[in-house]
Amino acid sequence: MRILLVNPNTTAAMTEGMMCVARTVAPLGADVVPLTAERGFPYIATRAEAQIAGAIALEMIAAHAGSADAAIIAAFGDPGLPAAREIFDFPVVGMAQAALVSAAMLGDRIAIATFSPALRRWYEDAARNAGLGDRFVGVSAPASHAAPPPAGAPATRQLLAGLCHRAVDELRADVVVLGGAPLAGLAAELQPEVGALLVDPVGAAIAQAVALVSMTPRAGFARRSGRPLPKPTNGLSPSLARLFAQEAAE
Amino acid sequence: MRILLVNPNTTAAMTEGMMCVARTVAPLGADVVPLTAERGFPYIATRAEAQIAGAIALEMIAAHAGSADAAIIAAFGDPGLPAAREIFDFPVVGMAQAALVSAAMLGDRIAIATFSPALRRWYEDAARNAGLGDRFVGVSAPASHAAPPPAGAPATRQLLAGLCHRAVDELRADVVVLGGAPLAGLAAELQPEVGALLVDPVGAAIAQAVALVSMTPRAGFARRSGRPLPKPTNGLSPSLARLFAQEAAE
Amino acid sequence: MRILLVNPNTTAAMTEGMMCVARTVAPLGADVVPLTAERGFPYIATRAEAQIAGAIALEMIAAHAGSADAAIIAAFGDPGLPAAREIFDFPVVGMAQAALVSAAMLGDRIAIATFSPALRRWYEDAARNAGLGDRFVGVSAPASHAAPPPAGAPATRQLLAGLCHRAVDELRADVVVLGGAPLAGLAAELQPEVGALLVDPVGAAIAQAVALVSMTPRAGFARRSGRPLPKPTNGLSPSLARLFAQEAAE
Amino acid sequence: MRILLVNPNTTAAMTEGMMCVARTVAPLGADVVPLTAERGFPYIATRAEAQIAGAIALEMIAAHAGSADAAIIAAFGDPGLPAAREIFDFPVVGMAQAALVSAAMLGDRIAIATFSPALRRWYEDAARNAGLGDRFVGVSAPASHAAPPPAGAPATRQLLAGLCHRAVDELRADVVVLGGAPLAGLAAELQPEVGALLVDPVGAAIAQAVALVSMTPRAGFARRSGRPLPKPTNGLSPSLARLFAQEAAE
Amino acid sequence: MRILLVNPNTTAAMTEGMMCVARTVAPLGADVVPLTAERGFPYIATRAEAQIAGAIALEMIAAHAGSADAAIIAAFGDPGLPAAREIFDFPVVGMAQAALVSAAMLGDRIAIATFSPALRRWYEDAARNAGLGDRFVGVSAPASHAAPPPAGAPATRQLLAGLCHRAVDELRADVVVLGGAPLAGLAAELQPEVGALLVDPVGAAIAQAVALVSMTPRAGFARRSGRPLPKPTNGLSPSLARLFAQEAAE
Amino acid sequence: MRILLVNPNTTAAMTEGMMCVARTVAPLGADVVPLTAERGFPYIATRAEAQIAGAIALEMIAAHAGSADAAIIAAFGDPGLPAAREIFDFPVVGMAQAALVSAAMLGDRIAIATFSPALRRWYEDAARNAGLGDRFVGVSAPASHAAPPPAGAPATRQLLAGLCHRAVDELRADVVVLGGAPLAGLAAELQPEVGALLVDPVGAAIAQAVALVSMTPRAGFARRSGRPLPKPTNGLSPSLARLFAQEAAE
Repeated sequence: MRILLVNPNTTAAMTEGMMCVARTVAPLGADVVPLTAERGFPYIATRAEAQIAGAIALEMIAAHAGSADAAIIAAFGDPGLPAAREIFDFPVVGMAQAALVSAAMLGDRIAIATFSPALRRWYEDAARNAGLGDRFVGVSAPASHAAPPPAGAPATRQLLAGLCHRAVDELRADVVVLGGAPLAGLAAELQPEVGALLVDPVGAAIAQAVALVSMTPRAGFARRSGRPLPKPTNGLSPSLARLFAQEAAE
Repeated sequence: MRILLVNPNTTAAMTEGMMCVARTVAPLGADVVPLTAERGFPYIATRAEAQIAGAIALEMIAAHAGSADAAIIAAFGDPGLPAAREIFDFPVVGMAQAALVSAAMLGDRIAIATFSPALRRWYEDAARNAGLGDRFVGVSAPASHAAPPPAGAPATRQLLAGLCHRAVDELRADVVVLGGAPLAGLAAELQPEVGALLVDPVGAAIAQAVALVSMTPRAGFARRSGRPLPKPTNGLSPSLARLFAQEAAE
Repeated sequence: MRILLVNPNTTAAMTEGMMCVARTVAPLGADVVPLTAERGFPYIATRAEAQIAGAIALEMIAAHAGSADAAIIAAFGDPGLPAAREIFDFPVVGMAQAALVSAAMLGDRIAIATFSPALRRWYEDAARNAGLGDRFVGVSAPASHAAPPPAGAPATRQLLAGLCHRAVDELRADVVVLGGAPLAGLAAELQPEVGALLVDPVGAAIAQAVALVSMTPRAGFARRSGRPLPKPTNGLSPSLARLFAQEAAE
Repeated sequence: MRILLVNPNTTAAMTEGMMCVARTVAPLGADVVPLTAERGFPYIATRAEAQIAGAIALEMIAAHAGSADAAIIAAFGDPGLPAAREIFDFPVVGMAQAALVSAAMLGDRIAIATFSPALRRWYEDAARNAGLGDRFVGVSAPASHAAPPPAGAPATRQLLAGLCHRAVDELRADVVVLGGAPLAGLAAELQPEVGALLVDPVGAAIAQAVALVSMTPRAGFARRSGRPLPKPTNGLSPSLARLFAQEAAE
Repeated sequence: MRILLVNPNTTAAMTEGMMCVARTVAPLGADVVPLTAERGFPYIATRAEAQIAGAIALEMIAAHAGSADAAIIAAFGDPGLPAAREIFDFPVVGMAQAALVSAAMLGDRIAIATFSPALRRWYEDAARNAGLGDRFVGVSAPASHAAPPPAGAPATRQLLAGLCHRAVDELRADVVVLGGAPLAGLAAELQPEVGALLVDPVGAAIAQAVALVSMTPRAGFARRSGRPLPKPTNGLSPSLARLFAQEAAE
Repeated sequence: MRILLVNPNTTAAMTEGMMCVARTVAPLGADVVPLTAERGFPYIATRAEAQIAGAIALEMIAAHAGSADAAIIAAFGDPGLPAAREIFDFPVVGMAQAALVSAAMLGDRIAIATFSPALRRWYEDAARNAGLGDRFVGVSAPASHAAPPPAGAPATRQLLAGLCHRAVDELRADVVVLGGAPLAGLAAELQPEVGALLVDPVGAAIAQAVALVSMTPRAGFARRSGRPLPKPTNGLSPSLARLFAQEAAE
């Protein structure tokens, strides 16, 4: 089983951080292929950035679709997710949606904790898009923006612990999703001191990609009635252009 | 990994049918333990029956909780699911919720196809409880009630194929969940002729139980702030009574 | 007119407290029959307890259904209510739903005040199930759990007065429902000092049971198209077993 | 107990028809006082008419408020109901809301059957305003408009029976409310042939007015924090003017 | 283009204040005709007052409908708006709805700032009626009621600036609508110091009336299938009576 | 006033068709600047295409932002609209949102009529994104896909007339929006034969752009608290790159 881990940010260190978690969760026989965007933004945080990075994510997946059994869009707000689901004939998983629907099977009230209020709106969009409006109880974030905290630093750990406590006490969350790539791996570490279940989006995305591949007959994708009609394009990446045109061939 | 497959119906053949699917989906190292209710209803179809069978499901899980890593409530409407989540310190998966949230990662519009209109209301309850109100587009069922069709019979296959087509054409479903134990295993068989992805609830439940166990640190469950306060009980099964009292001990 | 007051808790003193209120509200000719659960929990507070106690409530009603014109499920979260409505051929009233729909005819914004935060979730479920999502503005409860306060004690009165004020000032409630059996009778006492209408669930349940009996032709219940199909059962109480089987006879 | 039955239509025969039902439902000691509008519309059917007739209803209640324990706005769409609740210090019941919340205690899916599609929109407004959005499943009405059918005629009975069947078969209603004054009294007559519970709005309004008076301490109304602040007015009916100014005096 | 600015309050100074803003926004060729109610309330603030004033607004528009291309109901809660839309054959604009839908094209999260908590409920009604439930994030108002502040006074400016800051900081509003006639003209003045876009309802209403007239063929209004059926009336203003009857003539 | 009409499709004839309508609606002094995408799709119809074309729309606006007072994203599903609102400091109008919110001021129930079922999903997305969920009653489209009909042909007119009638009769629409560029200009022509108000999205977009510019102080945009934080980018168009970086300069 070959799973693309598509980071639509241009920061390679972020991809590597996610791979560390991915390796611990992926079962034997699941091959996770890391990809980092070559153009775009170092760190996506808004709708404007997600509009552009989502288009880049489509290019990245298209370029590697041939050998893939599933793809993960590895940025917490899931840029390009509904678009990718329309055109690729294998499961496409978003880190935010994977984390949130997993959370919905672990408890009732679901919160997201993250390190900057600047991410709040985009993450709220992600929760709405995941289809879990009722269950989502809010984002726990600091009052003012600061740079992404250094992964693994004690201050980061302390900040997030405080945000998780607030999610439990004020938002009455049963499950807290740690949103944002710099927090990859922190869930397991913080779990012993938080009164709610913690979900790591990278872990959730890997586990859900494996689950979807194991339960879904691959052949069904090509027959879906809602796929885009084939059409010529202009100026797209070669593999994307082929994908949009190629449908005509079937 | 030990997963309880808890059938709250009293029909052992139904449990065996579900185990056939379970065995094909469960990964190596996942041990699925079948349990069939010893009292209750041969086939749960209504809220009244689910109220009683849900309490029976709690007893069944409590009796085997010691050795379990996860439990599946193996009746499509998920009787007793929110109750079980409160008191057991491992993931509890409902077949309906597992199928529906998996479907939500495969497409936008989700329908359930089933063999009797008598199940419609209970299944609609399940969709609402799964937290996916917006995405759920309806139940495709015959106009009048008939006995559960014999699993594996050509007539059953034909009936369900027609209901799936209707889900695609009239409900515009992207994903169709085949609801109800007699349909276990039919999804893979029907997939080649349906213009939507098909989801088998048994397969989805097994895959989701494995996913949740792999991503969630077990230790987190005991610390959850929303657990019931300990209290004495009267007339409950011994293991349930112990469970409700025992919390006091912690 | 014979109304069953079915307390699915095992605490007889609680039943007696509710009967005190019931007697002052019930009109001449309405005979209220108190019933206390013989097994289960001294005080239901969670979904897990409600799953089991709801099944017990069905048994209690079934055992006395012959002579009844209506039944009240006399625990504020309405355990077993939708189930009971399916199988009994007379009005079944839940204390929470009766209080909340009565409140909806007295004002717009409806709150529940209660003595423990541990009841919050179950009461929120009740509000959602009552079908009044939009109108319900929240639960006013103390920050931390304490034992149920002694009915009638000045401290109880003071605690609840404070919670009612908070419901008016912070939740902007027009009507406040006092939720939980230990508070039976307190509404009338607190009303002079609160800037919102107060509703006592026992009073509301009695008044609504009388209203429903007076406006609904009893004969209509047996003809309802949504009733469960008859089926054999195993290990249920004799009167419940008869009820599920008996439908076949009609 | 004195209950005003305020018909904001100008058709006295309609008031008399409603009184026939009211007399059979009102308990001993409940005195129902019929009032018919002296200006306005013979039959309210739209929002524009309800805007004007609602203001007339306020005048009518104000003129008789002194001796009243409760008032019923006796037109199915409840014109002026939220306005009346703000300014009168006793329960004000709307026929539509009373019927719909009663229905919500009798079953899950609630429909309205009525004799003209021209009433559809106004009745849908009423359902939304009653706060029962989720539970309301639609209006069953003929495809084209005709004059209000003669109360009691066999053709009327037959028309409504057909609409009720449609509400059960197509809308899957558990409870059907017969909306519109010409249908007063028909529910009891049609019940034996319909597979859902039928609710008569006049009966429901009387029963709910009695229920609310019996459960609510009258003194609470004057203390409500949401009442309008006193203010001078110009050109209103004397009793309304006094009502708006008089608050200042308290 | 002739636009009626219909103030359903009886305070002429309020009309004049709104005309000052209207004159700066209305394009050349748009003739704005100010009308002040001759009976009713000096300042509408509640549902009860809106019920009556809405009926008065209908009379005012009817009396001047002959020469009008559009009408603005110039009180922030839009009294009588849905009623007016049914019976007049030109665009009718409400100040609240115009401001809120304009705001919805400028940003995502929309708040209303106003000078008294007594207006909160009526303004929330207006937001719901505007059809923008999801986008509306709340009313920012002082904790206690005071008289309407003198238009143009520095204290008024300071009060509103504070409320706007709160809308940005606590409600996270992208756009803030300044609700209530005494605030006409303040938006432009406060804009330089607020971190959100400010919308003046008078300006929005004029701009939207012009937009709707420019885009809608007038002839379409008379053909609308949802118009009230003609009927005789009793005791209405002559022009209103003619309007309701006249439909019969067509 | 300079308004960019940004067609994110690559078909220049489509832009010209829209300009024909734009010229008739735009007031004197409003200069509409047509722009056609140089890369992308001839006709956007799905989420996948919108993801990419939305990013292209951002580039197109950025390249001409200097001289603009407002921009219209001139494809009915509004690709890139929320993204564009975040980064440009003037009003950005989407054709779908402009048409739908205008419709919401003309009537209650709003439908979209269009020429292909393949557009249904994307247009439903647009309605949801416009924030008018409740008011939107559906898309009226043919059952099977055909090529975009030739603008101005009698068959196109007849097809659309039929779809509008269906929107009135089956969806009970008060207002019908004609969605899709090939239909530009058809609304005025069809209006005389349809029992609902018709809205042309190009006309609505121009009228709303003019309205927003006239009512909003331009200076407010730069102060909005929700704007993206400045950041370096890689591989974006020069004007977009400058836009994302430039914020840092302020």
